[in-house]
Amino acid sequence: MKKIGVILSGCGVFDGAEIQETVATLAALDNHGLQAVCFAPDVEQMHVINHYTSEVAEGEKRNVLVEAARIARGAIAPLQADSADDLDALILPGGFGAAKNLCDYAVKGDQMTVIPVVKEVLQKAFQAKKPIAALCIAPVILAKVLNANSPILTLGADGPDAENLNKIGGQHQATTHEEVVTDENNRLVTGPCYMLEANVGQIMRGADAVVKQLKAFL
Amino acid sequence: MKKIGVILSGCGVFDGAEIQETVATLAALDNHGLQAVCFAPDVEQMHVINHYTSEVAEGEKRNVLVEAARIARGAIAPLQADSADDLDALILPGGFGAAKNLCDYAVKGDQMTVIPVVKEVLQKAFQAKKPIAALCIAPVILAKVLNANSPILTLGADGPDAENLNKIGGQHQATTHEEVVTDENNRLVTGPCYMLEANVGQIMRGADAVVKQLKAFL
Repeated sequence: MKKIGVILSGCGVFDGAEIQETVATLAALDNHGLQAVCFAPDVEQMHVINHYTSEVAEGEKRNVLVEAARIARGAIAPLQADSADDLDALILPGGFGAAKNLCDYAVKGDQMTVIPVVKEVLQKAFQAKKPIAALCIAPVILAKVLNANSPILTLGADGPDAENLNKIGGQHQATTHEEVVTDENNRLVTGPCYMLEANVGQIMRGADAVVKQLKAFL
Repeated sequence: MKKIGVILSGCGVFDGAEIQETVATLAALDNHGLQAVCFAPDVEQMHVINHYTSEVAEGEKRNVLVEAARIARGAIAPLQADSADDLDALILPGGFGAAKNLCDYAVKGDQMTVIPVVKEVLQKAFQAKKPIAALCIAPVILAKVLNANSPILTLGADGPDAENLNKIGGQHQATTHEEVVTDENNRLVTGPCYMLEANVGQIMRGADAVVKQLKAFL
């Protein structure tokens, strides 16, 4: 069974990994006969958001790995530079955690930087020609760190985020629900998920379409 | 579109609502053309478990409603006695939160009590002949609070929990993955989900089977 690394960024759309996208990814991997291997960086979250009030929970601190373990039911390891060495592909679900904890896109836009361990693991996988998928906002990370020649990626509709992605070095291709953008040369697969206003069914089918295309590269 | 109340108990298998079961429930409702309306009681969790180490996070406090809002992306309301008055049915995903925050089964076994708001909303819905579904460990709550004549319910395999369910007043019927137990007279639908060792695909299909049967009562 092929092993796919799933890189998580916490637990909850506003400060971590988008939960529905993450479960949709795990279900899609299972549906296509692929084994999920979950990772998250062992770092502190940028902040904690109260998801009921949408306000920052002042003074509260949470760890990305510890919170991501909630979605993975404890079956998760700290992300390290060599985490993907024995894996066949990588996938990054979205959520603000991807833009706040794996990188600082949510704060710095096109001046973003990516945390070292995420950069290293993605660059190693890309150099080894392993396919990489990303959902929602996570494609900005691929645009930033891969030494790819203008990788073709989607963040859903055209707009400010798409313009940023192009400035960072990607080529944005607009998509609607459940569509997938495939960069054949770079072996990258992206889908919009909750970058568009969507319901959970669209997220399930959108993630499944991305994983189906990812599998086609294996 | 029929409206189904989803009663959550936090966010994370060891101290809250089981995340994968909850997303599977939301996806199944969407798949069957039913509208999910999420609720959780506005109470403090019994405790917080670090899901990476499995240890209790001493001194940490979290609120059931605030954490459940993570899965629901903020689209959630505080559970109240009249929460189901305008709804067509109820469903309770599982996770230890159902047994720690909605009731104290995890601590007291067959001597369990259910928190008042959960008891009230379930009794009102049952008296109004609205169908009720429950996954995983949550059926113990139905056995305890419904004034039903030995309701037929499942917690998966026979064993200590099944014995407790029978002592509480239910009639346990063993199930394996993706099977559903339907109590036609009481309009109750239950499925085992993570009471059995399972993978996420089995959870998705198990929740879908439960929701399909719930819909048949509407």
